[in-house]
Amino acid sequence: MASVPSDPIAISLGDPAGIGPEVLAKCWDNRGTFNLPPFVAIGDPRSIATVWDGPIVIIDDLREAETAFDAGLPLIQIMSGEEDTPGHPSVAGAHCSLDALELAVGLARSGSAAAVVTGPVGKAQLYDIGFAHPGQTEFVAERCGVSSGNVAMMLAGPTLRTVPATTHLPLTEVVAHLNSALIESRGRAVLRGLQRNFGIADPRLAITGLNPHSGEGGTLGREEIEIIEPAIAVLTAEGWRVTGPHPADTLFHASARANYDAALCMYHDQALIPVKAIHFEDAVNVTLGLPIVRTAPDHGTAFDIAGQDKADPRPMAAAIRMAAECAVHRVAAA
Amino acid sequence: MASVPSDPIAISLGDPAGIGPEVLAKCWDNRGTFNLPPFVAIGDPRSIATVWDGPIVIIDDLREAETAFDAGLPLIQIMSGEEDTPGHPSVAGAHCSLDALELAVGLARSGSAAAVVTGPVGKAQLYDIGFAHPGQTEFVAERCGVSSGNVAMMLAGPTLRTVPATTHLPLTEVVAHLNSALIESRGRAVLRGLQRNFGIADPRLAITGLNPHSGEGGTLGREEIEIIEPAIAVLTAEGWRVTGPHPADTLFHASARANYDAALCMYHDQALIPVKAIHFEDAVNVTLGLPIVRTAPDHGTAFDIAGQDKADPRPMAAAIRMAAECAVHRVAAA
Repeated sequence: MASVPSDPIAISLGDPAGIGPEVLAKCWDNRGTFNLPPFVAIGDPRSIATVWDGPIVIIDDLREAETAFDAGLPLIQIMSGEEDTPGHPSVAGAHCSLDALELAVGLARSGSAAAVVTGPVGKAQLYDIGFAHPGQTEFVAERCGVSSGNVAMMLAGPTLRTVPATTHLPLTEVVAHLNSALIESRGRAVLRGLQRNFGIADPRLAITGLNPHSGEGGTLGREEIEIIEPAIAVLTAEGWRVTGPHPADTLFHASARANYDAALCMYHDQALIPVKAIHFEDAVNVTLGLPIVRTAPDHGTAFDIAGQDKADPRPMAAAIRMAAECAVHRVAAA
Repeated sequence: MASVPSDPIAISLGDPAGIGPEVLAKCWDNRGTFNLPPFVAIGDPRSIATVWDGPIVIIDDLREAETAFDAGLPLIQIMSGEEDTPGHPSVAGAHCSLDALELAVGLARSGSAAAVVTGPVGKAQLYDIGFAHPGQTEFVAERCGVSSGNVAMMLAGPTLRTVPATTHLPLTEVVAHLNSALIESRGRAVLRGLQRNFGIADPRLAITGLNPHSGEGGTLGREEIEIIEPAIAVLTAEGWRVTGPHPADTLFHASARANYDAALCMYHDQALIPVKAIHFEDAVNVTLGLPIVRTAPDHGTAFDIAGQDKADPRPMAAAIRMAAECAVHRVAAA
């Protein structure tokens, strides 16, 4: 049985010219098959109507959502300054996507929404209008009053959850950004997130090495000895169940995955290669360390296929389901 | 139907104190279930007898192998200077493992053996006796008169084959070793290997980027633009079917894997994480670019579990099957 929180889930549509409107509409169409709880779209209804013939129910208040959900896709309007065309992002659309994100986060912070799911935004377009954050995650963290150093980006699939300690950096800059304090703070965010969002009372965290074979005792790199092992010692001394540093190439097969609840990896591809190889259609981006629940489908705006009825709604459906599950776990733990 | 070459496969036992003897004996026990062609062990029969009660048939000539194979595990003797104990590697055992490797390669080079499968050696022990190669691959290349720059280490499973362009380097040293010429020569070795060893007439090679999102147009690193794209252009101009640079995190799910026959990756974990996550028990190490067929199970000596009847023979069985398949493809192509 799917988790159903007592409040609806607020979903920002993302860029109106991207695939966000289409995949959310398809989620409403398949809400029974996908086993989805009530949700509310936030954005420009025209961006949905241009790619979908189904019923949209404009609402003003999230308390109308549950009743409206049977009749159509409930939507709180954030109008774009112009009518956007799928595949053709605009300045007006970027403003619209940002306003929708802001409102969705506000609704979750006020307690009206059980959780936020964020649709894909056009980063280049956001940068053009002065957006100063690397991505939506950092924006949401700031709006929640949390330092982005204390949040963690988890990619969670049915049998594997991974978190990169460093994220969007050139590979040559990873080591300069890696230090014990970062691994410790990310590790705590992951461990607490496993407790609060996933209901795991005594979570197990596996931490990877940086180098091949985890440095092979120092002969293939010393970061394991100098940076990672001390961080593991600190977390262990705090009472957490942490193991590692593990060679990354032998950590992700089925029997290895049974030994931990999440893996903290040192850099982007080390974390994302295994979870996307195994769970491409249903891996969900979950931000840990926030006072609210926030998830996102792990894909971009896909402007190249927007408006062509090609977009796969399964990642968005997985993000909605996981937002609901996390919200229910949070209420149970409170 | 399994491939059965006309000559037997020569298998060096590796370190007599490791799990090599045990897994090979288990392969003979299960030769029917595992669908294995005739093979011959090369090493010290005492290292097998101490962990296995089955019949060993000592032979002097590979031509005796096929007949002997029904009666017991055929073995060409290379005696260790002392009787080794499982889990306790020795100098004598290291010499024995090296002599067995040398003989196995010689048998394949002479044409008496259809292929070589190499059991796991103790690298620390080999270094102690003056072994000057990083691993068995480079030794085999030298004995075959091939520069180690022109061979490629492929990890091949049933649905994914990957090759690291650089191998056992600290992560911080990867970029210094990466250049267009290296990617081109590895790429050619892989493409020719797909033709000769796997019977793929017009092989498709996918090449990864180095950085997250393949550098995202240069904002997350410029190696894709400066090093990888020029190499792809050279290979394409030579008539090969090469694509990339692909973001590594979206290259390894099932539908992406259908678009290429092998992926050339920039560094160790980028190549080995996906193939071991998906094919842990049956990924096989295949050396491409040699005049002979050489495969190896993708595990080490596992001294910690040697002699305890815990070792899984499936990787060795997969290595033997793949050696046979490659040998048959080579004969067909010759």
